[in-house]
Amino acid sequence: MNKNKHIVVGIIGLGSRGFSITQMIAKMKDVEIKYVCDTYEDRTEAAQASVFRLAGYKPQIVTDYKYILADEEVQAVLILTSWETHIKIAIDAMVSGKYAGMEVGGAYDINDCFLLVEAYEKTGIPCMMLENCCYGKYELMIKNMVDKGILGEIVHCSGGYMHDLREEIAYGKENRHYRLRNYISRNCDNYPTHELGPIAKLLKINNGNLMLSIYSISSKSKGLSHYLNEKKKDDLELCNTVFKQGDIITSVIKCQNGETITLTLDTTLPRFYSRGFSVSGTKGRYQEDGNLIFLDDKHCKFHFLSRIFYNNASLYLRRYMHPIWKRFKKEGVKGGHGGMDYLVLRAFLESVRDRTDTPIDVYDSASWMAITALSEKSILIDAPVPIPDFTKGKWKSKKTSEGRYSLD
Amino acid sequence: MNKNKHIVVGIIGLGSRGFSITQMIAKMKDVEIKYVCDTYEDRTEAAQASVFRLAGYKPQIVTDYKYILADEEVQAVLILTSWETHIKIAIDAMVSGKYAGMEVGGAYDINDCFLLVEAYEKTGIPCMMLENCCYGKYELMIKNMVDKGILGEIVHCSGGYMHDLREEIAYGKENRHYRLRNYISRNCDNYPTHELGPIAKLLKINNGNLMLSIYSISSKSKGLSHYLNEKKKDDLELCNTVFKQGDIITSVIKCQNGETITLTLDTTLPRFYSRGFSVSGTKGRYQEDGNLIFLDDKHCKFHFLSRIFYNNASLYLRRYMHPIWKRFKKEGVKGGHGGMDYLVLRAFLESVRDRTDTPIDVYDSASWMAITALSEKSILIDAPVPIPDFTKGKWKSKKTSEGRYSLD
Repeated sequence: MNKNKHIVVGIIGLGSRGFSITQMIAKMKDVEIKYVCDTYEDRTEAAQASVFRLAGYKPQIVTDYKYILADEEVQAVLILTSWETHIKIAIDAMVSGKYAGMEVGGAYDINDCFLLVEAYEKTGIPCMMLENCCYGKYELMIKNMVDKGILGEIVHCSGGYMHDLREEIAYGKENRHYRLRNYISRNCDNYPTHELGPIAKLLKINNGNLMLSIYSISSKSKGLSHYLNEKKKDDLELCNTVFKQGDIITSVIKCQNGETITLTLDTTLPRFYSRGFSVSGTKGRYQEDGNLIFLDDKHCKFHFLSRIFYNNASLYLRRYMHPIWKRFKKEGVKGGHGGMDYLVLRAFLESVRDRTDTPIDVYDSASWMAITALSEKSILIDAPVPIPDFTKGKWKSKKTSEGRYSLD
Repeated sequence: MNKNKHIVVGIIGLGSRGFSITQMIAKMKDVEIKYVCDTYEDRTEAAQASVFRLAGYKPQIVTDYKYILADEEVQAVLILTSWETHIKIAIDAMVSGKYAGMEVGGAYDINDCFLLVEAYEKTGIPCMMLENCCYGKYELMIKNMVDKGILGEIVHCSGGYMHDLREEIAYGKENRHYRLRNYISRNCDNYPTHELGPIAKLLKINNGNLMLSIYSISSKSKGLSHYLNEKKKDDLELCNTVFKQGDIITSVIKCQNGETITLTLDTTLPRFYSRGFSVSGTKGRYQEDGNLIFLDDKHCKFHFLSRIFYNNASLYLRRYMHPIWKRFKKEGVKGGHGGMDYLVLRAFLESVRDRTDTPIDVYDSASWMAITALSEKSILIDAPVPIPDFTKGKWKSKKTSEGRYSLD
């Protein structure tokens, strides 16, 4: 063991996202990446070489994550694999006594979410979805404003993952990317936690509030086939593939405390990227599209003039930037996606170091991931479906976390 | 009869909207307002005086619209009354052989929508909802772009009526406004046709396409009571009133041709006005919030940079302004709400003059108004409800209209 490193981790899954997270962690002086794991040899070698280049040591290469779990020195694993395997590996990690940090994804079966919670409750080992958007600069500023009461009582939020991924999906065979097979075989909100994560934290879901039910509908599926027939004409197999995944999935969620949430998945059509975040309260509103803050006291006379206020939300950063971000700016913003990748990793890794709960816990992770399986079911049966209370009533009296990265 | 006037109308309902429409019509040289009708005397007198001031003649004052319907010279009535009476008066008008132009609103009972259609089918007299947003500059530009295939195949649209009406509702007693009683006694999307009207026309609903089902959810109701307790503290009765109407109603609609529609009603919270119009296609997208056009060919390299493109939609007016608007600009834009009020009135009145079908017909009006009753039911039973086919199959082979104001 490297004596200067406090935190020893294994990294499982080294696709494009896994590789970039490996690089980010390699630069952290207090973390040792003891293992890099993938079933593809070229990926493990590239990751090992990259860590050596950045940090001067070589992680061990393994192709089976169970070797990592068998090493008592490893305190945590980062699960950056394809969506299908997140929960299984996380459960195995907890059972082996290792903190589980899972990349963003959704569940395939609601029972897997129960198993995830069960593993935590049996072992007491934390499991955290690494939902970076919970640490987005604007998401946290709005959360800060909500916590201070600036927007009044919150009654509705919206958000989604609206990101043109046609190229990534269309070249899924070439890039060994799991999205392709998912878009062929399923129809659901396959990526709900942008922006459900930040919304759930803001609405205190599982911590005084609950999600109760979801209803989802799917548009027809036209984006990918149109794209393929324009840009990848020679891939006849794919051009003739029927994609089950609708282009736009819209889900509406009801909460225990009377709020509603609208979620959108929009990943196979041309568009500007947006997480479509909006928060509506009795005193004001934020919306990402237009980057607008409306405060009743201040803007009520101008309510027909949204266009001249576009981007006014940036002016509020000075006053309402979240303490996590203030500190981050002082210490030097680093890492991908504007810094939020770094923050979510530190939130996880410092919990590992301090042996504390993680700011996004297993109940958050399970209930957010459940949305994928439940949206699939709702689309199939064309009816709203209940969202289980994974906390079994503990949401009424959850202990609020207080760490440096707390989102409570 | 005034010999220079080709079109003779009666105006029923002279609240704030009715009064302003009366003024707009009074200025039209080819239209005679033979009657102004309201149950409140001060309103009829003000309207009569206003017509005299603007046009030099005095319409007759009546308090019962049946007097208007009994006058053979009257060709059409404009129904600008409270929502509750739109359909009844429209049916009476058609039965009396007079074109019915109804202000925007929603149905209270799905059966009323069937009765509206039945009255048209029995009499052959057209009935048109005066949905001004169908003639909005941007709505028509986007429709034009869609018709030209610029956005590709359309798979999803969204829109809504997002307008802070707290003051109007809170002072409903003082202003004799019907919204107040509706917000106390109902919970539904009470104003769906902004922006369902333009969306339905764009998706060719009832003309090759159909709306199939709707599911609606309601947020809690907090906006009005918060507002009243801040701004109208001395109105104890109202401060203690429980409003059934949720602050935000979200509805999702499925269409025959596979498109989905998201509708939002957001009228009791502070916010910038928006109709939240968006249109997603396989080649591009428009969204009102940010006033953004994204064209795959042109913007794909900049898809993370929405903020620097805010308001770029205005640049497309030059190339894609709808022919209706080009003509309107040439002839001189006039009338309220940026011109669209004038356009929708002319669309109706010129149909009356020419004895042709109206560009928004009874099937459009019935199916759009039905959304209110169906959303109320869906919220109540927490399930999706089917949307009837008011055309009874005629949507498959509807004759496309071709007038100056055609929206087909």
